[in-house]
Formats: sequence, structure tokens, C-alpha cells
Amino acid sequence: MKRVQRMIQQPSISGEGRGIRECATLVAAYLAEAGVESPTLVETDGNPVVYGELDAGAKHTLIVYMMYDTQPFAGETWSQPPLDAALVPFDPFPQVVMGRGAINTKGPMVAFFNALMAAKELGEPLPVNLKLVCEGEEELGSPHLPQFFKENLSRLRGAEAVLYPGASQDRNGRVKIWGGNKGIVYLELVSSGDRWGRGPLAHDIHSSHKAWIDSPVWRMINALSTMVSEDGNTVAIRGFYDDVRGPTPEEHEIVRELARTFDPDVIRMQNKVERFIDDLEGVDLLEKFLYSSTLNIDGVWGGHTGPGTKTVLPHEVRVRVDIRLVPDQVPDKVLAAVRNHLDRYGFPDIEIQVHDKYDWSQTPLDAPIVRAVRSAYGRMGHPPEVWPRAGGSLPMYLFTKDPLKLPALSGGLGHGAGAHAPDEYMVIEGTDKVAGLIEQELSYLTILEAYAEIAR
Amino acid sequence: MKRVQRMIQQPSISGEGRGIRECATLVAAYLAEAGVESPTLVETDGNPVVYGELDAGAKHTLIVYMMYDTQPFAGETWSQPPLDAALVPFDPFPQVVMGRGAINTKGPMVAFFNALMAAKELGEPLPVNLKLVCEGEEELGSPHLPQFFKENLSRLRGAEAVLYPGASQDRNGRVKIWGGNKGIVYLELVSSGDRWGRGPLAHDIHSSHKAWIDSPVWRMINALSTMVSEDGNTVAIRGFYDDVRGPTPEEHEIVRELARTFDPDVIRMQNKVERFIDDLEGVDLLEKFLYSSTLNIDGVWGGHTGPGTKTVLPHEVRVRVDIRLVPDQVPDKVLAAVRNHLDRYGFPDIEIQVHDKYDWSQTPLDAPIVRAVRSAYGRMGHPPEVWPRAGGSLPMYLFTKDPLKLPALSGGLGHGAGAHAPDEYMVIEGTDKVAGLIEQELSYLTILEAYAEIAR
Repeated sequence: MKRVQRMIQQPSISGEGRGIRECATLVAAYLAEAGVESPTLVETDGNPVVYGELDAGAKHTLIVYMMYDTQPFAGETWSQPPLDAALVPFDPFPQVVMGRGAINTKGPMVAFFNALMAAKELGEPLPVNLKLVCEGEEELGSPHLPQFFKENLSRLRGAEAVLYPGASQDRNGRVKIWGGNKGIVYLELVSSGDRWGRGPLAHDIHSSHKAWIDSPVWRMINALSTMVSEDGNTVAIRGFYDDVRGPTPEEHEIVRELARTFDPDVIRMQNKVERFIDDLEGVDLLEKFLYSSTLNIDGVWGGHTGPGTKTVLPHEVRVRVDIRLVPDQVPDKVLAAVRNHLDRYGFPDIEIQVHDKYDWSQTPLDAPIVRAVRSAYGRMGHPPEVWPRAGGSLPMYLFTKDPLKLPALSGGLGHGAGAHAPDEYMVIEGTDKVAGLIEQELSYLTILEAYAEIAR
Repeated sequence: MKRVQRMIQQPSISGEGRGIRECATLVAAYLAEAGVESPTLVETDGNPVVYGELDAGAKHTLIVYMMYDTQPFAGETWSQPPLDAALVPFDPFPQVVMGRGAINTKGPMVAFFNALMAAKELGEPLPVNLKLVCEGEEELGSPHLPQFFKENLSRLRGAEAVLYPGASQDRNGRVKIWGGNKGIVYLELVSSGDRWGRGPLAHDIHSSHKAWIDSPVWRMINALSTMVSEDGNTVAIRGFYDDVRGPTPEEHEIVRELARTFDPDVIRMQNKVERFIDDLEGVDLLEKFLYSSTLNIDGVWGGHTGPGTKTVLPHEVRVRVDIRLVPDQVPDKVLAAVRNHLDRYGFPDIEIQVHDKYDWSQTPLDAPIVRAVRSAYGRMGHPPEVWPRAGGSLPMYLFTKDPLKLPALSGGLGHGAGAHAPDEYMVIEGTDKVAGLIEQELSYLTILEAYAEIAR
């Protein structure tokens, strides 16, 4: 518990470049304490990856993927200072640790280290060998993780699967398994007079000029409106859905199974939402969520956005867009489709800045690592709900695709919430349904054990 | 000159509520110095109007409309502190006064006061009686000026015309007369999950939910795109243009005359613009500017607008829109057309917040006040360019429409620039083409004199 607190108290906010190296050093120290012979800060063009190996002389080897960076907390209102790692009761939990990174993902990371240390203290050899990869830029979209893979591929060879230690219980204790992640393309679209050659070229001007001067903002609005259906839910870009494949018959069966326990009210309550798209329900709703590629506007701004009634014809407007990719979409192909769409509709001047871009990942649900995690949960009394994939994006494609082509899965009991939000927490002392820190640590060892048995 | 400086040094930023009453008191003191018997701060529900009368025992009476408030300067980069009122050379002018309000409109206002003081010092009775109305909310859209008119109408009765003291020369010395102003409707459109009942109801949520939850931002984009043509320049709202009347044959002739001297390159340079709408030229371009009603987007913002790649499905987006009105459009009718359009296209939940709304104004170009100003310019060697109206909005309708129905005109030599922008200035020491402060003051007295002669 003290190690979890210490890790949270060391800021490591990649978005602000704060505390990164200090935190990486602390991670390396914990790895050493857990028995890793010479944990290393492997340099990249960005933040270092902390890497270490634990050779247990076992037959099988897993990669353990983790991250040591966190989101910022500036501008958020917390009930406890976000770097205090305060231990507080949090209904219905007798005790949680509250702080930035508690659940995402310093808590689970240190819980995993604790599990290794416990095994070491007991003199028990681990049932599998481990290669531990702890990156420091996940919250930035892992821009330099591909570089790490390229330059350290030989170190990673020989592993059979990837485990990403998590705390996969919801507040009612239900455990979930996600067989993959969506990919993402994060763009900034820019419409400006400068690039267009029409409208104000250099700065916002008095809006009375709209009578004889064109508007880059109206241009953006009209360009955007060509990209989606009238309800904003179907993408109207040629080729966008070309590589989307629906659920296989096996996956469809898994979703039918999932629909039996899935409670849409949990989603409604957690997100303060009343209705789903087209008022879908059950299997239809779940398949919409799991198998849809989306074009979302994350943010838009231009012209006068402060108080008052300033009248300007803006010279520029910017729109942030994220596209979530599902199998078998290809990031560069989708990106090209967006560019092609804008060109074809007469908007070649609208600029596309690519902030972030990576592939989806998918692990077969009968892979040994999936079976091991399911089995471990079962042994601990928590039969899991199986989701073919998660809606969010994680760079697990680096493991699941060329050249490693490894199955990869997040696993572990425990619970926390508030990622990217105030009052982020992870449960320390649990309930009869939700694992506390010690049971969470035990779940990691149980997974490793189950893997050794199943892979045998 | 010192009075101009003193007035600029006293901030009066209506948008920030800064220095208003102090400035109003200073204006009243200057009025007293100019011979007004008991200048008064007339209270409204907003900033006070400074009012005073100068009875010269003359046959005719003019209202002089002025404003004492200015735009803010926060966030702007100036070469001189904006409250210093520094006297500096400014190519090609030997000396200008630089500061917030220098041209808009503390400089012209104090120049007019100076003219009155000069006449008083010389013992010369003014050729006309004056009712001086100096408001303190012009930069906010004059929200309480109608209240002042309603509560003080009897004071204003008996005047024949309205003069708004300006500095109407451009940097080349050319003088312009504008026969009217466009009206304005300033709106904020809000699309939110809360009002819609779809999408996130309370706050932005993780963008992976776009797969099954609707987006209020896409809704706004699609609603906006129905409101204009593909090039963003023609409004597609039913009834929007119903009351727009084109130029009369007489006005068409005035525009033809204007086109002979009009130089579009000045507009291009001043606004950093290359091309006009549809690449119009000459009379067509001028009539587009003068006789078009417009729907402009002043600002738009929603979701994540800071640095980084935060992925959110926003619960709300806001768009600021200004509509410029030309004769014979009616603000409330246009507003109703916008509401009706949104309802008819299935967007009844998109909220319209009205920030500001007032009528156009038009003064016949053969009115005595117009003839007086033209005559005064002619006498001083500056035959003016006549524009049927200006593109901007001023609340002159309060004078030109019921119940006063007075002709109203801006007039005065002199030059300045940088209104609502950094390095705002007014010329103190002119060139052979551009009037300096003294000649500017003289031009006001010449206008009053010409009016007395012409109205006789």
C-alpha cells in the first residue's frame, strides 16, 4: 500500500513533461526490488521505457505491458489533493487510495510489482518468465513505443503472450475481459483564409465585411456536413467502411451471451445519458458499440469565444476529430479516404494535421492467455463477462501485429474509477464482491500460474 | 490635445465595467467647461448617459450623439501602453495620439468639446443649439440607450437632426459620408445533450461512446449547414431576405458615382484579403457590400479546445452568429425566421440566445444635415465620397425611426485607425491631405455653421 502511495506521490504527467524521469527511476527501483536483475531506462526520442527481465527458469515467457505516465489534473476539482495519495473511505469501500494515476495505472502496476515481491519473499519461483515493458507516453498516444519496439525487438522475442495488469472489476464486483481494442486516428482539421486564398488571410476582421468577403468558418461547417449522415451517426466518406467486418458467427454468439448480463443503465448512469443511438437495445446495441467505426468531433474552436458580443469574420477555425477503427480497417487507408473526400467535395485547402494514429488490436478468445485469465477469475470466484473488444484505444497492436503477433490481454481483479477525471481512486480494502489490494495482487499470481498450466 | 490625452488615460471599458463612472464624470466636467449649464449623469439600468444642453438662442437645434466607453485591450500587443495616450510620430503623420479609444471615439468626442470651448472663449455664440447625448455602452451594443430614450424623450424633442462627431478621413485624406447603418441581430446558438435529450446530458464523456451515443456537435454542424448555400454566402432561411430592398434608381446612381473613386485595394490591404465574394468588381461589389444582409459566424467553441489529444464526446457546442440587417428588414422578423427554420428542419432543441438586436438606420441623402456636412467638407477643400450606408452597425435607428424620426449623420475631418485593435491612434498633427486636431475641431464648427445656413 505504501508503495502504491509513493508511486502516486511522484508526479509523472507526460502531457506536461513533469516528473517523468524521476518516476521512471522509481519504477526501475521497484523492478529491482522485485528481482529483476538490471532494470534499464531505455531511451527513445521521447520518454524512456523502463525495461527489465525476470528469468524464473520456466518453460514459458510473458511480456508484461505497463505505463508509468498519467493524465494531468490541472483545472480539475478534487476532494483530496491529487498527489497526496490519501487513504480514505469511499462508499461502499472501507478504504481506497485517491490520487492521479490511482487506477490509470499506477495502482495496478505497483500491485503487480508487489505480487512479484511477495513471491520472491516466499522463495517461490515464478511459474513463467517475464519481460517487463513500462512505457512513459501512453497518455500521449504512445508516440515513441514503435521506436522502442523497433530498436529492442530481439529483447522481446521468445515471449508467447502479453499481459496488461489491470483492475477489471466494476463497483458491483463484475469482472470483464476485453479481447481487443479499437484503433484510433486523431486529426485536427484547419480551414483558413490563408490556405484557401479567400476570406481573411491573416487575422480576424470586422464582421461587416462578411457582405463581400468569404468565411473560412462557413466553409468548414459545409465541409464537415458532407462527412456524416443527417443524424451525425453514419460516416458518408467513400471507402470509410470498406474494411469494416461485422461480427463472425462465433463473435455474434459471444455478444448474445454478453447481452444476457449487460445492463445499459450502468452506461446511462456512469455517463449521464438517457438514450442510445436509434434507441437500440440488447445485442443490436452491443454490436453497434463493438463493431462500429466512428467519426467524432472532440473539439471545435474559432473566432470570438470569450464573453461579450465581439463581431468578427474569423480567418481560421479548427476542429479536432477522432476516428475509432475496428478490424480490418487500416489507419492510413482511412486517413487517405478523409483526404480524398475533402478533395473530391472541393475542399483541397482544408488541412489535415495528424496528431495520433494507431491500429486496432484483436486477440482470439481461445488464446492461452485469455483462457488463463478466465480460469484464474473462475478459481477466485469471479466468472467474467467476455467482451470481444473494448471501445477505447490502446497501442496493443504493437504486440498483436507484425512482427511479434502475440495474443495480448488485460487482466486482474480489483476496482477503481475516475481515470482522466477528478477523485480518481483504486480500492485498497474491498468488499465481499470487490477485491482489495491483497486479493488483486493474488489475482496476478493466479493468472501467471494458470497460464503456466494452460500453456503446458 | 491635453484634454484628449486625459480622456484616453481615464479607462472606460464597458466590457469589463472598468472606470465607467469616473469617465462619465470627466465627460460631464468637459461639457460644463464647454458652456453646458448643468450636465447630468442620467441613470439607466446600465451605465449612465451623460446629457447636457447648450442653448445658443439659435433657430435650429441639433442632437450630438457620442459615446465615452471603449473596447478592452486585454490580450493585445501594443507598441505604446494603451492607457498612456502617448504622442508619437506615425508615418506619414508627424504626430498622433496612441491609446485605447483614440479614434473610437474619445479623440473625436474631445475634439468636438474643444471646438465648443474655442467658440466660447472667442465669445462667439454657436450657430445652432445643441442637445448632447453621450452614452457609455456603445461597445456593448447600447443595451440601455432605448431606456434612456424612453425616459428622456421630452428632453430630445425639438431637435431637427443628429450629428455624430467623427474623423472621417482615410490615411490618404479622402473623406467619406455614410447615409446610414446596417442593423444587427447577435445570437448564440446552443446545441446540448441536455436540451436534446440525446447525447451526453451533463458533461463531456469519453469519445469511445460515440459508437452508441449521439453527438450534439454533429447536430449543430448539420443544423448550421442547412442555413446557408454551399459557398456560405447566401442565406437559405425561408423569409430571411423577404424585406430586403435593393438600391433605388437614385441609390444606384450614387453607387455608380462612388465606384469611380472606390479603390478595392484599400479594403484588401487594410483587412489582409485577396479576393472578394464571387470575384465581384466595381458597382456589383459595392452593391453587394451595401445592400446584402448577412449571416456570419463570429465564434464557435465546444469540447476539448486546449493542447493535446483528449478524446471526448462533448455535451454542448456554442456558436455566435451576427446577422446584418438592411432596409427594410425587421430584427424580430428575421429572428423568428431563424427560429422557424431550425424548427422546420427538425432542430427545435437548438437554443437561440439573443445577445443584441437593433434596427438599421437610413438618412435621406438630401436631408439638410447631409447637405450641411457635404458643404462644410467642400468649403474646407475635401469634397466627400458619398456612401449610401456603412457596413457596420450603430444604434442610430433610435434617432431615425419612431418617435423622433430625425436624419442622422456622422461628420468631421480628421483621421485615425485601429478601432478594436492594437495601436489605435488619431492624428494630432496632420499632413497636407489629412486634417490635424485643430483642423478637425474647426470642421465641427464649420458643419454647425453650414447647418444653420442650409436649414434656414
